[in-house]
Amino acid sequence: MTDKLKHQMQFLFEVDKMKSVLRQTVITDKSREENDAEHSWHIALMAMTLFEYIGIDGVDINRVIRMAIVHDLVEIYAGDTFAYDIKGNEDKKERENEAAAKLFSLLPEEQAEEYRALWEEFDDMDTPDAMYASAIDRLQPFLMNYLTDGHTWVKHGVSAELVFKRMAPVKIVLPEIWGFVEHVIFDSIEKGYIYSHRA
Amino acid sequence: MTDKLKHQMQFLFEVDKMKSVLRQTVITDKSREENDAEHSWHIALMAMTLFEYIGIDGVDINRVIRMAIVHDLVEIYAGDTFAYDIKGNEDKKERENEAAAKLFSLLPEEQAEEYRALWEEFDDMDTPDAMYASAIDRLQPFLMNYLTDGHTWVKHGVSAELVFKRMAPVKIVLPEIWGFVEHVIFDSIEKGYIYSHRA
Repeated sequence: MTDKLKHQMQFLFEVDKMKSVLRQTVITDKSREENDAEHSWHIALMAMTLFEYIGIDGVDINRVIRMAIVHDLVEIYAGDTFAYDIKGNEDKKERENEAAAKLFSLLPEEQAEEYRALWEEFDDMDTPDAMYASAIDRLQPFLMNYLTDGHTWVKHGVSAELVFKRMAPVKIVLPEIWGFVEHVIFDSIEKGYIYSHRA
Repeated sequence: MTDKLKHQMQFLFEVDKMKSVLRQTVITDKSREENDAEHSWHIALMAMTLFEYIGIDGVDINRVIRMAIVHDLVEIYAGDTFAYDIKGNEDKKERENEAAAKLFSLLPEEQAEEYRALWEEFDDMDTPDAMYASAIDRLQPFLMNYLTDGHTWVKHGVSAELVFKRMAPVKIVLPEIWGFVEHVIFDSIEKGYIYSHRA
């Protein structure tokens, strides 16, 4: 067994910890919080399934699926930062850079670079692949919240304005789905899951 | 919102149940059983990471990753069947065919056909893609068992002979990793995780 393979195996053992990084979202039976491994799987499948609705050019679905699989790995050490947590998001990049250095150093250089680059591309949201992956990464917890009586929105008192802002990438990347997103937001206001100053 | 999109969304809600299909394996901190969503994510990442060790021709890693993501979906209705459960495996195919018909019928015909075909190909283990996906699907719980003091092996009193048989595809598909697999099996016999008539 080469040192290279040994370190790759250590990486594959270490990533098991994704199953214990809890998110704000609960699974649809509301029995418990969702973890990062499940979330990553769910968005990979969503990206595959909703691909036909993409409204931008140049998306490579195979890269998007890989991006979905690795995009939250740094949270093994950096933890999940809630989207609407302003304070937590201030030092997020710094915490995640340290985590990336620690985790990906287990891998051979080329592979470490590949995974790190996919994660950074995702985070920057500048390329078509990252824009699609990111839109799906926002759509998934949005739908989970709606299916669980607004769990996270209610818990943190989130406004419709914030949700609209957070979901805006979906309007660009998946225009055919935007009508559905708006419907869910308005219905969520109606049901009291999110508040609106205009309501 | 078209009926087509509505049904795809229903499918994407329904698959959340993968997060509640429990497997025999426990996660590495031994706090609880692993579920199908986490397992599918883990093998997708393993397939990506160990790709360079493939010893057979004709593997399309992008198809393998998709296969990893959908390969256990039918267990939402059919449940997880333990690899070493002879009785449970007798009617497995029938239960899973019914489950596939129910789950994939939510999708548009072409997509239903794509996911079903990926699952069937995986199950038949005949193509290079399915052979690789399947080898990884066996390697993952094998490693998890080793990392958790032989949890499932001890619980069910599994023999080294059965483990060798179950792991045989790894020898063909990932020959460079076979030495490591053998090492793990012999060490597991030594540690009493699995029994050997020869020991």
